[in-house]
Amino acid sequence: MSSKPQKIVMKFGGTSVADIERIRNVAKLVKGEVDSGHQVAVVVSAMSGETNKLVGWTKELSPLHDAREYDTIVAAGEQITAGLLAVALSALGVSARSWLGWQIPIKTSDMHGSARILDIPASQMNERLAQGQVAVVAGFQGIANDNRISTLGRGGSDTSAVALAAALGADRCDIYTDVDGVYTTDPRILVAGKAKRLEKIAFEEMLEMASLGAKVLQTRSVEMAMVHRVPTRVLSTFAPEKGGTLLCDEEDIVEKNPVTGIAYSRDEAKITLLQVADKPGIAAAIFGPLADAGVNVDMIVQNISEDGKTNLTFTVGRAELDRSLAAIEKASPEIGYKKLLSDAKVAKVSVIGIGMRAHPGVAQTMFMTLAEKGINIQVISTSEIKISVLIAEEYVELAVRALHSIYGLDAA
Amino acid sequence: MSSKPQKIVMKFGGTSVADIERIRNVAKLVKGEVDSGHQVAVVVSAMSGETNKLVGWTKELSPLHDAREYDTIVAAGEQITAGLLAVALSALGVSARSWLGWQIPIKTSDMHGSARILDIPASQMNERLAQGQVAVVAGFQGIANDNRISTLGRGGSDTSAVALAAALGADRCDIYTDVDGVYTTDPRILVAGKAKRLEKIAFEEMLEMASLGAKVLQTRSVEMAMVHRVPTRVLSTFAPEKGGTLLCDEEDIVEKNPVTGIAYSRDEAKITLLQVADKPGIAAAIFGPLADAGVNVDMIVQNISEDGKTNLTFTVGRAELDRSLAAIEKASPEIGYKKLLSDAKVAKVSVIGIGMRAHPGVAQTMFMTLAEKGINIQVISTSEIKISVLIAEEYVELAVRALHSIYGLDAA
Repeated sequence: MSSKPQKIVMKFGGTSVADIERIRNVAKLVKGEVDSGHQVAVVVSAMSGETNKLVGWTKELSPLHDAREYDTIVAAGEQITAGLLAVALSALGVSARSWLGWQIPIKTSDMHGSARILDIPASQMNERLAQGQVAVVAGFQGIANDNRISTLGRGGSDTSAVALAAALGADRCDIYTDVDGVYTTDPRILVAGKAKRLEKIAFEEMLEMASLGAKVLQTRSVEMAMVHRVPTRVLSTFAPEKGGTLLCDEEDIVEKNPVTGIAYSRDEAKITLLQVADKPGIAAAIFGPLADAGVNVDMIVQNISEDGKTNLTFTVGRAELDRSLAAIEKASPEIGYKKLLSDAKVAKVSVIGIGMRAHPGVAQTMFMTLAEKGINIQVISTSEIKISVLIAEEYVELAVRALHSIYGLDAA
Repeated sequence: MSSKPQKIVMKFGGTSVADIERIRNVAKLVKGEVDSGHQVAVVVSAMSGETNKLVGWTKELSPLHDAREYDTIVAAGEQITAGLLAVALSALGVSARSWLGWQIPIKTSDMHGSARILDIPASQMNERLAQGQVAVVAGFQGIANDNRISTLGRGGSDTSAVALAAALGADRCDIYTDVDGVYTTDPRILVAGKAKRLEKIAFEEMLEMASLGAKVLQTRSVEMAMVHRVPTRVLSTFAPEKGGTLLCDEEDIVEKNPVTGIAYSRDEAKITLLQVADKPGIAAAIFGPLADAGVNVDMIVQNISEDGKTNLTFTVGRAELDRSLAAIEKASPEIGYKKLLSDAKVAKVSVIGIGMRAHPGVAQTMFMTLAEKGINIQVISTSEIKISVLIAEEYVELAVRALHSIYGLDAA
């Protein structure tokens, strides 16, 4: 990027710090930025496998454990990496110190296990950065009001990094991971090399990509980057020279294609209630018990009414299907339906692009293309910048390939 | 012990919490005390092997690492165990919470890596204990003035436990370990079964035993138990019913044998300077450079002077021999000696007993016994309650067995 001295937050995930050799490699990448004159704060995850080990032990002792103890246990993983990277940096002659969540302190809500960051005081850390000391921050963790360690939930180190970048007023946040950027679609689903790495993607688009199944960045971190307008880059620890993908404001993207990418998710299940009474309060009767059971309902379609009865279809996460059906059956006297149907073999395919606002006909192209391939659309939902359809799971690859091609996303 | 409700600190070492099954076992032992109506604080070490793994990683990255980062890294081990044991206790229906060093806070000196405990505020924890909540405390760690994690040095969890017991005003401190108490000598050196477990031992005796090579308890923890008069028990996690050994005041031991135990240490090396000028300042010229090199000098003997010259012999830890010789050779112009001799194949054997104050002749018995076996005594040092001799290492077993027998310590 720019050679003007900047303030940078670098974030490294678990595979990037999986062993001592890789931690040394990360230290070299950090040294590179320091040698270019930049001020650097680094956010690290636990060494790959460490968090799963700690979570496994905790669950073995008790499936229903105290979330405060869970946080105390798993936060040790990032603590270890932060200390080790500080040692590795010092060994390269780079001034560095580790910072744990409670030392900064990264203040969070009291929702242990999935806390939200409330505040990060930046003055002390900015002072050290200005003196040329690298701050190595344990990701994923903070401190709650009860003076106990909190964690942000799985994948939360991305969020730590973006929040820290916002608090420090950093010029950019670089998320180093095991892929070299955000692609037009999942490269594994296309014929080799057909998916293209995006140079830039708008925050809004990335948010849709992330929440629709692209696993590159955690949704919360993208939201935070968008809200605080933190230019955020995704790039590979093992091939940083490729440059990665920059998440930025819509205005910073000059050439806007109608469609930027195709996302898909197999983590879907469909539920249909036949012959529900079409009367006020019926939606509350159905979705209330689901909310109480902690189920997130995604797409919802209600057919037109016939003889005061209607059919209602919606989707839930596949892992939540059994729980959802049980909740509905339990509430069946209040709801009153004729039949309850479900299908766990469905998938959601979405086309995403801020450009579709200015290009009408994107939806029509999607529906035509799927029809030509003989793929039946079961549910449709749309937003300003995305169109999602629910289809039978077996057609996912076919659908993604056809759409990727028709919107001109295939690499030459 | 007593069935009257008491306040107890229980401490479990690394082998006692080595895996999930053993942590469950520890939880059951703690529950036993809680069910008897006692208030319980538990101090835990890192799971066996964990600390070595973390230290290994740190050293691999840099042999000369920042001690503050070292502390941050290794303290994670006890943090994990504390959280896991709290979860295990909750699973048994016992109210419990983990406490990290910085949460209590256990305030220490700034000597990272080998910090000393300065203060443990007890009121908050005592309040919780009185409410019936078990406190699970991460051993070995505290917080220094710089708001960073400090550790007490290897084996420091014993010290954490005794210090906590003193601060809380506990009725006793139970150190659970992988041996079932303190023996009259190292059981491995005697014919099977001849060493006896001591029911009680005076603090002063234990201090000599610990510093002279008996590895059951860390010296600092015994000192602290003595100073704060904390009745401290050593007992086996795997056979607690045996009852262990109680460390107590001298007055609480009714029957005082002249000798309580025999200790030995192979970690010795002897250095002799021949023909040193016998003049004021010569000791400073020799031991000053050794102190500067961080060498602990133990036994010292100076022969009578002849023609203004004397021979000087002293012992150092075997691992420090090379460093010691280098320091002396470097200072040779200031010291002025004719020849420098050294011997790394020496060992120290000690007889210990508060009873020897009242029984003259203990030393004479020792010297006679060794002479009868043909064992030459190279250096002698004594205190009120112990006599130590330096002998050739090859005679250690022979000497210990003969002394154990002559002082009537052999089990029937």
